[in-house]
Amino acid sequence: MASEHKVLHGIGVCAGTASGPVAFVAQAPGVDENEPKSTDLEADTARLDDARAKVIDTLVQRADKATDEKSKGVLKATAQMAGDKGLYKSIVKHLKAGEGMTHAVAGAASEYAAKLAKLGGYFAERVTDINDVRDRLIAELRGLPAPGVPDITEPVIIVARDLAPAETATLHPGQVLGIITQEGGPTSHTAILAAQLGIPCAVKTKGALDAITADDIVALDGGVGEVIVSPTDDEVAQLKDRAARRAKALAGSSGEGATRDGHRVALLANIGTVDDAMNAAKFDLEGSGLFRSEFLFLGRDEAPTVEEQTETYTKVLNAFGKDRHVVVRTLDAGADKPLKFANQEHEDNPALGVRGLRLGMRRVDLLDTQLQALANAYQATGGDLWVMAPMVSTVDEAEWFAQKARSYGLPKVGVMVEVPAAAIRSAQILSVVDFCSIGTNDLSQYTMAADRLNGELANLLTPWQPAVLHMIKAACDGGAATGKHVGVCGEAGGDPLMALVLAGLGVQSLSMAPTKVNAVRAALRMHDFSTCQQMAAYALDARTAEDARKAVIAIADPMLLDLL
Amino acid sequence: MASEHKVLHGIGVCAGTASGPVAFVAQAPGVDENEPKSTDLEADTARLDDARAKVIDTLVQRADKATDEKSKGVLKATAQMAGDKGLYKSIVKHLKAGEGMTHAVAGAASEYAAKLAKLGGYFAERVTDINDVRDRLIAELRGLPAPGVPDITEPVIIVARDLAPAETATLHPGQVLGIITQEGGPTSHTAILAAQLGIPCAVKTKGALDAITADDIVALDGGVGEVIVSPTDDEVAQLKDRAARRAKALAGSSGEGATRDGHRVALLANIGTVDDAMNAAKFDLEGSGLFRSEFLFLGRDEAPTVEEQTETYTKVLNAFGKDRHVVVRTLDAGADKPLKFANQEHEDNPALGVRGLRLGMRRVDLLDTQLQALANAYQATGGDLWVMAPMVSTVDEAEWFAQKARSYGLPKVGVMVEVPAAAIRSAQILSVVDFCSIGTNDLSQYTMAADRLNGELANLLTPWQPAVLHMIKAACDGGAATGKHVGVCGEAGGDPLMALVLAGLGVQSLSMAPTKVNAVRAALRMHDFSTCQQMAAYALDARTAEDARKAVIAIADPMLLDLL
Repeated sequence: MASEHKVLHGIGVCAGTASGPVAFVAQAPGVDENEPKSTDLEADTARLDDARAKVIDTLVQRADKATDEKSKGVLKATAQMAGDKGLYKSIVKHLKAGEGMTHAVAGAASEYAAKLAKLGGYFAERVTDINDVRDRLIAELRGLPAPGVPDITEPVIIVARDLAPAETATLHPGQVLGIITQEGGPTSHTAILAAQLGIPCAVKTKGALDAITADDIVALDGGVGEVIVSPTDDEVAQLKDRAARRAKALAGSSGEGATRDGHRVALLANIGTVDDAMNAAKFDLEGSGLFRSEFLFLGRDEAPTVEEQTETYTKVLNAFGKDRHVVVRTLDAGADKPLKFANQEHEDNPALGVRGLRLGMRRVDLLDTQLQALANAYQATGGDLWVMAPMVSTVDEAEWFAQKARSYGLPKVGVMVEVPAAAIRSAQILSVVDFCSIGTNDLSQYTMAADRLNGELANLLTPWQPAVLHMIKAACDGGAATGKHVGVCGEAGGDPLMALVLAGLGVQSLSMAPTKVNAVRAALRMHDFSTCQQMAAYALDARTAEDARKAVIAIADPMLLDLL
Repeated sequence: MASEHKVLHGIGVCAGTASGPVAFVAQAPGVDENEPKSTDLEADTARLDDARAKVIDTLVQRADKATDEKSKGVLKATAQMAGDKGLYKSIVKHLKAGEGMTHAVAGAASEYAAKLAKLGGYFAERVTDINDVRDRLIAELRGLPAPGVPDITEPVIIVARDLAPAETATLHPGQVLGIITQEGGPTSHTAILAAQLGIPCAVKTKGALDAITADDIVALDGGVGEVIVSPTDDEVAQLKDRAARRAKALAGSSGEGATRDGHRVALLANIGTVDDAMNAAKFDLEGSGLFRSEFLFLGRDEAPTVEEQTETYTKVLNAFGKDRHVVVRTLDAGADKPLKFANQEHEDNPALGVRGLRLGMRRVDLLDTQLQALANAYQATGGDLWVMAPMVSTVDEAEWFAQKARSYGLPKVGVMVEVPAAAIRSAQILSVVDFCSIGTNDLSQYTMAADRLNGELANLLTPWQPAVLHMIKAACDGGAATGKHVGVCGEAGGDPLMALVLAGLGVQSLSMAPTKVNAVRAALRMHDFSTCQQMAAYALDARTAEDARKAVIAIADPMLLDLL
């Protein structure tokens, strides 16, 4: 039965509206702590056979239906693992020893995973598949929903406690109308990836898991973060109206980014994979301002080889051709993106730890391999490649990186400005590199000393905080003093209102989810550069983040509001 | 046998030299995993009786020898607990059940602790004593050294992996010539407390635990962090020379802090307890720039009452009289100082989490109680009380705190500047409060995005980083614009060289370990204010932290070097 009419409030992280049925993302169930010991081997084996067949069947069906090769491959490999005889025999052995059903599955999977991990290389990479098979088998045996993103047969709004990056990555925009999470913050990687896919999304939606049931129709405004359970027809109509006005405001948005009076602001895409690059390159935009190379490294037991990396970078550069530049950020591991093979010790505050270039300076082998692969791809394609290092905090670090990158023949070398120290010292840092790119998410996090993954502090974590705007201004002032390029590649660049302020502060390029480029371009075209400068001045002088945003809205073209 | 001559390098955190024998601080041993089960109750009870008698005896002896009432009280209470009959019976019961000797002790102690914790209040506070008794009994039974700071009979240099704040607090300056730790960072609370006691100290001394043995004589320079194992006579003589030159440079340092030409910089003490206040008040200094009120709250199961807090604040204010001001910082819990009764959820990055005023705004009851107690103490003493909030990042937060504090009739209300946002926005923040105090340790941590407790990043974590100096300058500029007082209460204020730079930047008061005031006062007296301003300008313009320090040394009075 559908729930009663109810309005929930989350944080909108990807504009757009949606209404429709829901699908829940289930968490891995874990073993049944209360199950009986195995005493009837025949009956238990039959139960196991049955569950195993169902899991294999589901996986094969999903693989057949998958439209992209990557998902198809992953699902097929998992199906094969579910059918693996060694794993099966081991589960039976555990049952024979008297273990309960799900304990037998968990025990066998853990032993098998340990063996594979020992073999290393290809085999070690299969551990993920084993764990997936284990979770699916246990869920089937316990009569619980299969973990992860459900098998979607009609367009739905996904509802979850939170989505792991891997889960978000397997979502298909065509089948997913929207995403609602109960936890997660506006600058979490999940929110970023959802925006990347252009799916309307609200995070930190309090009470979503209790208020929404499987039979509900839900309406979602991913701009303001409103979620309506069992909406009225009027409410759905209003959402549609809003979407229509937005479409009108966006109509005719094309070409290079610029203010109404022609002040140029390049519009670029944030990407993380070759698929992202292929997708983004189809959009009307001017290149990529951020290729997050860490997606090549995460979730693996060994670093990718020079050859593998060269292939990836070559594909990415080829996707954008010779006329559109691509900014590759070197490995940004550590903090919330740990690497198995970079063997880091526990850190009390990983966000303030050995991450980004700090890890690169300690694991020079990883950086050398990456720079060699980038140099290879540059030579092979003749593409317009820019390379930058993450998490730079001093001039020395910037110079160390620049010398190293240039020694590989890389033509354009820069750094991220995400540490307050780098913003404050941008003139000195830009004197030793060719460009910088401001990461507004981390810069906000450090400037406000508030963890971007801590939902409780979300009110502090907005680039509208005048203090954060001052940091961005400091970076732009360094660019003006040295004549070097200053871009923004944090999520702030994708907010049409904030984009005007950034342009006014002196930012020369904005990199964002490609789905956001149209709205930002339209916003820039509605305003003169002098208005953007006035907006920046008002925002800097404002008392609070809220006041800053209001002051900017007050002098913005009213049509802009439909883009927000 | 003494070790061979060897030189180790750590980080000097409290200037001064020492040489002499060593004493190791042992860690709690934990149960013996390989011990046999108890089969001979009579023999085991006899062993227990023997160990118990020895532990009680040691504690009583130490209590008798203790010179201050607080230590005496703690040791007596622990001795009583060691003799507790309920605990004894419970251990015997565990032995009867066949448990091994140390397991029986640990099991009984854990049950007893749980019972006391349930009773709450006074009884719950005895849990610390039980745990101490447990560790001492187990160490005695296993033939291992008693955990914690050893019983010192002659002046020694303490050597430890790291010291817990509680351990540091029980050290007596008269008996401890110096401290050498293998781990810990220069801004760790241990280093801060060591400096507070004025004990020459080197932290992060690589290999100290391997290189130094119990029979060694060790020489220590707590200024440069050098440790010499089995020093030559010449080396000891050089250390003594250095100490003599230092004494000469300090001679005649007295009175108010000021540059040679009379520019005033108030010299204040950082304190954490009533004892600290009594001790600091004896020094020739102008008040306290930081009373860390969290020491009243830490390690307890319940928050202190209004009455208890009033008593403490009253004593602290009385210690300094009506002519010397005392700046009390409201509860700065969270991060590395969690509170049992403030029930915080796990945080991935506690340093970027709900700490300081952020906790105060969520647990208004704690803040209200504290402000009431401060108001009571103010009324009772008529002392010159300033009150400030930690971890403020926006104007709104500052105003919220100021209104609340003023509603209790507190006369002078301020905030800490330790978040970059607060430094950047100091003019706006100072417009709603009466003063601010810069916490250089946290301000460095956030500006450089480097955890102050992560030794690996120590090179980034110095206030000599030009970016950090720019933040301090921003705060001082806000003070100049509003005519409000800007002080420093981080450890940077205690470095005679940095003190000159801070004065040059416009800092009006420096708060530090009282033992450091003489050197800082002497340094100020050696220089004109215009030289300090020149030093500040050079340091701000320097390329690196190292360059900044060198540039300042280059124009400093040569005699200053003996103070470092």
